[in-house]
Amino acid sequence: MPKIRPLFFTLSAATIAAAAAFAPAASAEEGMWTFDGFPTAKVKAEHGWAPDQKWLDRTRAAAVRLAGGCSASFVSPDGLILTNHHCVIGCLQDLSSADSDFVQNGFNAGDRLREKQCPGQQAEVVTSISDVTMDIKKAMGDAKGEALVKARDARISEIEASECPDRDKTRCQVVTLFGGGQYKLYQYRKYSDVRIAWAPEFNAAFFGGDPDNFNFPRYAMDGAFLRAYEGGKPASTPVHLKWNPRAPVDGEMTFVVGNPGSTQRGMTAAQRAFQREVALPDRLIQLSEFRGRLIEAMGTDPARLREGKDTLFGYENSFKALYGRMQALNNASFAAKLDASEADLKAKSAGKIDGDPWADIEQAVNAYRDFAKVEGQIDSSGGSALYGYARTLVRAAAEREKPNNERLPQYTESRLPLTEKRVLDPVPTYAWLEEMSLRFWLSKTREKLTTDHPDVQALLGKESPEGMAQRLVSGTKLADPAVRKALWDGGMEAIKASDDPLIQLALSQDARSRALRKQFEEVYEAPVTAAQAKLADARFAAYGDANYPDATFTLRISYGTVKGWRENGIDIPTRTVMGGTYDRATGAEPYVLAKAFAENEAKINKNATYDFVSTNDIIGGNSGSPVLDKEGTVIGAAFDGNIHSLGGNYGYDGELNRTVSVSTEAIQQGLEVLYPAPALVQELKGKK
Amino acid sequence: MPKIRPLFFTLSAATIAAAAAFAPAASAEEGMWTFDGFPTAKVKAEHGWAPDQKWLDRTRAAAVRLAGGCSASFVSPDGLILTNHHCVIGCLQDLSSADSDFVQNGFNAGDRLREKQCPGQQAEVVTSISDVTMDIKKAMGDAKGEALVKARDARISEIEASECPDRDKTRCQVVTLFGGGQYKLYQYRKYSDVRIAWAPEFNAAFFGGDPDNFNFPRYAMDGAFLRAYEGGKPASTPVHLKWNPRAPVDGEMTFVVGNPGSTQRGMTAAQRAFQREVALPDRLIQLSEFRGRLIEAMGTDPARLREGKDTLFGYENSFKALYGRMQALNNASFAAKLDASEADLKAKSAGKIDGDPWADIEQAVNAYRDFAKVEGQIDSSGGSALYGYARTLVRAAAEREKPNNERLPQYTESRLPLTEKRVLDPVPTYAWLEEMSLRFWLSKTREKLTTDHPDVQALLGKESPEGMAQRLVSGTKLADPAVRKALWDGGMEAIKASDDPLIQLALSQDARSRALRKQFEEVYEAPVTAAQAKLADARFAAYGDANYPDATFTLRISYGTVKGWRENGIDIPTRTVMGGTYDRATGAEPYVLAKAFAENEAKINKNATYDFVSTNDIIGGNSGSPVLDKEGTVIGAAFDGNIHSLGGNYGYDGELNRTVSVSTEAIQQGLEVLYPAPALVQELKGKK
Repeated sequence: MPKIRPLFFTLSAATIAAAAAFAPAASAEEGMWTFDGFPTAKVKAEHGWAPDQKWLDRTRAAAVRLAGGCSASFVSPDGLILTNHHCVIGCLQDLSSADSDFVQNGFNAGDRLREKQCPGQQAEVVTSISDVTMDIKKAMGDAKGEALVKARDARISEIEASECPDRDKTRCQVVTLFGGGQYKLYQYRKYSDVRIAWAPEFNAAFFGGDPDNFNFPRYAMDGAFLRAYEGGKPASTPVHLKWNPRAPVDGEMTFVVGNPGSTQRGMTAAQRAFQREVALPDRLIQLSEFRGRLIEAMGTDPARLREGKDTLFGYENSFKALYGRMQALNNASFAAKLDASEADLKAKSAGKIDGDPWADIEQAVNAYRDFAKVEGQIDSSGGSALYGYARTLVRAAAEREKPNNERLPQYTESRLPLTEKRVLDPVPTYAWLEEMSLRFWLSKTREKLTTDHPDVQALLGKESPEGMAQRLVSGTKLADPAVRKALWDGGMEAIKASDDPLIQLALSQDARSRALRKQFEEVYEAPVTAAQAKLADARFAAYGDANYPDATFTLRISYGTVKGWRENGIDIPTRTVMGGTYDRATGAEPYVLAKAFAENEAKINKNATYDFVSTNDIIGGNSGSPVLDKEGTVIGAAFDGNIHSLGGNYGYDGELNRTVSVSTEAIQQGLEVLYPAPALVQELKGKK
Repeated sequence: MPKIRPLFFTLSAATIAAAAAFAPAASAEEGMWTFDGFPTAKVKAEHGWAPDQKWLDRTRAAAVRLAGGCSASFVSPDGLILTNHHCVIGCLQDLSSADSDFVQNGFNAGDRLREKQCPGQQAEVVTSISDVTMDIKKAMGDAKGEALVKARDARISEIEASECPDRDKTRCQVVTLFGGGQYKLYQYRKYSDVRIAWAPEFNAAFFGGDPDNFNFPRYAMDGAFLRAYEGGKPASTPVHLKWNPRAPVDGEMTFVVGNPGSTQRGMTAAQRAFQREVALPDRLIQLSEFRGRLIEAMGTDPARLREGKDTLFGYENSFKALYGRMQALNNASFAAKLDASEADLKAKSAGKIDGDPWADIEQAVNAYRDFAKVEGQIDSSGGSALYGYARTLVRAAAEREKPNNERLPQYTESRLPLTEKRVLDPVPTYAWLEEMSLRFWLSKTREKLTTDHPDVQALLGKESPEGMAQRLVSGTKLADPAVRKALWDGGMEAIKASDDPLIQLALSQDARSRALRKQFEEVYEAPVTAAQAKLADARFAAYGDANYPDATFTLRISYGTVKGWRENGIDIPTRTVMGGTYDRATGAEPYVLAKAFAENEAKINKNATYDFVSTNDIIGGNSGSPVLDKEGTVIGAAFDGNIHSLGGNYGYDGELNRTVSVSTEAIQQGLEVLYPAPALVQELKGKK
């Protein structure tokens, strides 16, 4: 399962805006439900049992969102956090060097004093949810176009700033649900010191690699433990989930609690057409070429293999996920279901809403088609971490001079601390990878827009993509956190005085980037936001309010069943066992046995459940989510979906969609036999 | 303009089969007309003038097809051939070494004795065209499925063998036109000794490189001269075109005579959907990743930059062409035109044909969808020249043991000489490129079909793609033409005794490849062939016979006008002048001035027309076609289309589609000023 990763391609604002829409009427076990909208009656009707409010409250208070784009949970009173290995691989890589490769060898702190801080990481727990819909709608009034977006964002920034004055420990976020039908204020307790405690070897966590990703059967120990710290000490987390290292039982109920990143189940036919015809193929094509470049650039060079690993994994994961989406949209029967759902909504809401929101959205999509390519290429940091810093530094300097409610969203008081942390935390960058990313971006920009395009002329002048990338990376000092800190603290004066080539590029591109953003708000975001609010009315009119909003990387709960599926006439079983790893191993990557597996074959419980599937409705961002049983104890960590789940972005098919989780029984084998961590075992048992 | 290049991706038999269909009713200047079906009345009506039979006969007899996938023409009595530089770049590369780089520096023989033979090249001139439709249809009778394909191919192989008994100098080819509505026997005079006489520097021929490819304005001297030889001497070609080194005149009529490779204008909606949803995105994605790998693998290594240049150009050219097709199919107004054309045909032929060929084709497409991916990956030589040799050697050994009319088409008596020539001609291969190609193919096969697929298990066993590719390339001896010759001559006995790892792989995969081919014939080719014959009836019933068949890489003539177009409110002019090169040059690739341009700035005629556009309806395969004026003299060589022409695969839009040609005036500057070739200048003047 993908963690949410920032993609520099065409994951444009349109994709994000389109995400915040409607899910169709929920079928059995479908739904990523909010905690204040859990469908107790529906669950009881389907399963004869449903969790009570106490169960829900306790679970919600133990659920953790990781700012890097994953989910997790507290599993001890001392801030211990269960998540996926692939959610900590970036941290492991940032902490590694040629001498100590924590990705390859895993990480086992042994005791708390040796736990290491993960750069840029932050853990967040929801403490309250309240409705601010009327407040936001009042602020928007009858505004249109860019003015509507400005009015909405200004009011959101005010609410977020006033409701969470303690920026060190709290964070407020106004979440747009049902595409503008509801606005909810989520308050979080935040932990900005998060450390790595335990992670298995890469070859255990990611056995099967990209070929097995999104497939099943799987043999992957995709689990890891972090710990939240406060004031330099393990955080006190009295509310946490009970660790239950047992095998799942076929047919038992499971609950997955986490933060699905984004779904687009409320997309209209026009939006889906744009995805199918333009956005997805274009992104897949660019992802593919970059992937190819990266694979060859890494080659067999040990340093590059280590340095590029996480980036490659991210690209391959995104590729597969998006390819699955494209296939889903091109699947005739799946597409017919989505069309039928739209037709049903139109029919049932006819005469009950104002105007024609479907036509409004189609018009906005068509207007956006004309400049999507330009926006995607020009308003971009080209996949370069260093140029990303430069753009943020330039923007932050300008935005911080404005009043809070006039700033771009990423720079409002409530979001500034995380933005700052991400720019200033020390993270290694690799010159070869930076240069390759910029070279690629510049050459694709020229290719897509043509040499004669004014934006290309402004960007490249008479330089070649290769020459310019080389000049930028060899000349910049932004890899040094102290240099970034000086530019952050120095504000616009320091920025303007800087002779750093990436800062200069970001400065020279800023006006055009802002103009493109404005154009996007005017022709797409504003009309679509207005139309989606009407679609919200249509849906409430047609189906009432027993429904769930599209995913927004906020806390949700999904209920389901431990259950295999049937494919091409073959029954796919619910689980694998750990011993199966030895049969699947070939000695060649990505099927090389992890060292600890090879050394402990005699000791390991080969019959322990390794990975298992369930019908829970999840998506990228849910990675690391605890899998709970009816008692509310943790029996797994969700880390993937099967190939059918990729269509889950647009709709849920209970026959085929499956969540893939690593069992707590397997992780317990990891803690006891493979990578012994007796202190953690005791802590998970509730013993100090 | 692309020459036709063999792509190992999903340019499956389906794509080819689908090509042989119908063009819609022709609008003004639309059409790739056969020489025995030239629309004299239509042309006269539109232009007030049309060439007479003598004009057509003389032109046909001077038109050359190059077996590598290009077009050309005789322009002197001594076998001198005009074509594009990009049609000879493969030859230049094959003849180059680290010491003499004919791609980079160009090639200028000076006199005939120094002209060098191009490996694998063959020139062919049509000598007669006759109708064999009834003969083939009788042979097919009422056969269905695989039997129909077999019966048709058997009869074709018999006709081709009996009509061209002189295999050294002639070649017979039965061409399927109108998707099976007509079968025509084309007889060719062939020249299997073709030598390179003159080619400019790469930086002159391909100035602007990939960014400018399929765009206009252009500044490219994409012209070159070959010479046909017979018995070691220049061939005598008394019928040839007159070289006319003058600028084209805006609005004058132009004729392009050449071999358009394939169009799909008769595709039904179901076939277009398959292209749009599956075939094109999948190929583009694979092309992109391979392109990325190749770019990085070449890096800045001078040897690899030279060795990989032509391959990279081929991939980039294919990418852009196919991307343009995908965009065309996803363009709403273009798609609506194609749908309307299909609806019109249905309406006008209603009640006049048997059955429902559209439904038959849809059924075949849906059946093919299920195994297209397997076929594309498994029945493939993985882009490896060496594995391609191995597969051909294994197949040829088996097929040559059969009677002519039972062989696979590529191995029938009429086609065997070219197949043999291509296997045995000495062509350099590059181990790094071979290994990369195989590694890529094997890893994509596993990715697309999954590790657990039986075909993947059979192919890889417990090897990794990387390990297996390394083993195959380091172990094979097939790079040596003598080894290939021994295996060709030794037949099946030698093949079976060989311990060459690529031969062994080809042997072990042969049965499965044949089974996939059979399955393809059964579920797709046979029913589609039958349905297309019905569509032929429908079209004749609806529109009569004044139409042209889809392109089949056989000789066609297109008429048009020297004319710019209007885009985004801007008038694009008809031509560029040579002096413009100096303004466009940046000093960085691909805008580096060719050495001869830099050195001869004072001497060159800066006002000479360089490249120009016309409305002629052409497509890949037409590369190198002579552009003729009303007098039948040569005023240019077609080498590209504008970006709109890429939709020309499915339909022609006279407002936007343009052919791009290099003028004879510019090539004359090349011959006189830049790369002086006084002997050629005299020869082109008709003086010895």
